[in-house]
Amino acid sequence: MLKMEDGALRKQLEFLIELDRLKTIVRQSRIVSHSRRENSAEHSWHLAIFALVLADHAAVELDALHAVRLLLVHDIVEIDAGDAPIHSSTADKDGLQTAERNAAKRIFGLLPQDQGERMDAFWREFEEAKTPAARFAKALDRLQPLLLNVMTDGGTWTENAVTEEQVVERYGPTIEAGSPALWTAARKLVAHHFAERRNL
Amino acid sequence: MLKMEDGALRKQLEFLIELDRLKTIVRQSRIVSHSRRENSAEHSWHLAIFALVLADHAAVELDALHAVRLLLVHDIVEIDAGDAPIHSSTADKDGLQTAERNAAKRIFGLLPQDQGERMDAFWREFEEAKTPAARFAKALDRLQPLLLNVMTDGGTWTENAVTEEQVVERYGPTIEAGSPALWTAARKLVAHHFAERRNL
Repeated sequence: MLKMEDGALRKQLEFLIELDRLKTIVRQSRIVSHSRRENSAEHSWHLAIFALVLADHAAVELDALHAVRLLLVHDIVEIDAGDAPIHSSTADKDGLQTAERNAAKRIFGLLPQDQGERMDAFWREFEEAKTPAARFAKALDRLQPLLLNVMTDGGTWTENAVTEEQVVERYGPTIEAGSPALWTAARKLVAHHFAERRNL
Repeated sequence: MLKMEDGALRKQLEFLIELDRLKTIVRQSRIVSHSRRENSAEHSWHLAIFALVLADHAAVELDALHAVRLLLVHDIVEIDAGDAPIHSSTADKDGLQTAERNAAKRIFGLLPQDQGERMDAFWREFEEAKTPAARFAKALDRLQPLLLNVMTDGGTWTENAVTEEQVVERYGPTIEAGSPALWTAARKLVAHHFAERRNL
C-alpha cells in the first residue's frame, strides 16, 4: 500500500503498480534474438506500435489510437489468469473465461469506479471482437507471434510440431477478419517458411 | 529480410521486427518483484497505461491518446543509442544526443518515407517537451521509475547512494512541469521513503 492519503490518485497509482506484474507473465513466443521468451507487457507495447504503423491495412477505416488503447489493456487479465498458449491442446476454455472475468473484476476494480468500468469496457470490446478496432487489434495479436515465429526458425510451431495447415487454421480467420491485406501477406510468409523447412 | 514483395507493407513489417530489439535494452530500474531490471519495451507499455490512467492530473487539458503515442515511440532510439541512466555522472550529453538523432534517422528511415517522418516528429516532440502532451509524457517517464524505486527499497537510489535532495532535483522539475498534482503526491512518497530509511 502506498503511504499517501486516500482518494482517486492513490487508487490509480496502486493500479499502475499492480500492472507491473504483467512484466512477469511469460508467453510462448521467443523474441527475435532467440535469447528468451516474450513477456506480456513488452508484447502489449509491440502490438500497440503494430496498430500505429499498420492501421491503413485494416479491413475498414478505423481509429488507430482506439485500437492502441484496446491493445494496451487486452492482456492485463493475464496477471491473474496467465497466458493461454495458442498451440496448447489442454486448454479449458470455459475455465479460462471465468478466470479472466474474475481477473478483470479484481484488477480494474482497483481503479476509481468510473475509470475501472471504462477500462473493463475496453477489455470486453477486445474480447468480443465485434467492433472494427477490436477485430483489427485481434488480427495484430495473431500477426505478431506469427512474425516472431518466422524470424526464429519456426519458434512455437517447430517446438510443438505444428503443421502449415494448422497455422493457417489457427491464425488465418482472426487475421483475415481484421485485415485481409495482412493475411494475404502473412499467408505467403507462412508458405515460404514451411517450404524452406521441407528443404532442410 | 522478409521473403515478400517490395513495397510499403514490407518496410513496415521490417520496421516492426527491428523494434523487437527494444525488448533487449535493459534499464536501471528493477521491476516491483525485484527479480530483474526493467527493459525499455515493457517500460514503454507501462508508461502508455500511466498516460491513459493519469491524464486528468496533467497540468493542462490534453489529448491522452496523443501522449500515449509519444510514449510508445519515445525510447525506440535506445535500440542503437542505449539507455542513459538518470543517476550516471559520466553521461556525455552531446554525444548521446548525436547518437539518438542518428538512431532515429536509421530506425524511422526503415518505414515508408511519410510514415517515418511522422514517427520521427513524435519522437522529437517528446524530446523537445514544448507541447502539453510531451511535457506530461516526460513527467510520467520520471514518475514511473520513482514509483518503482519506492516499491523496491529505494532501487536505483539505494544502489547509487542518491540523497533525498538529489531525487527532488532530478525528478521534481520534470514531473512538476507536466503535472503539479502528481509532483505533490510523489514528493510526499519520496519524503516518506527517506524518512523510513533514516529509521532503519
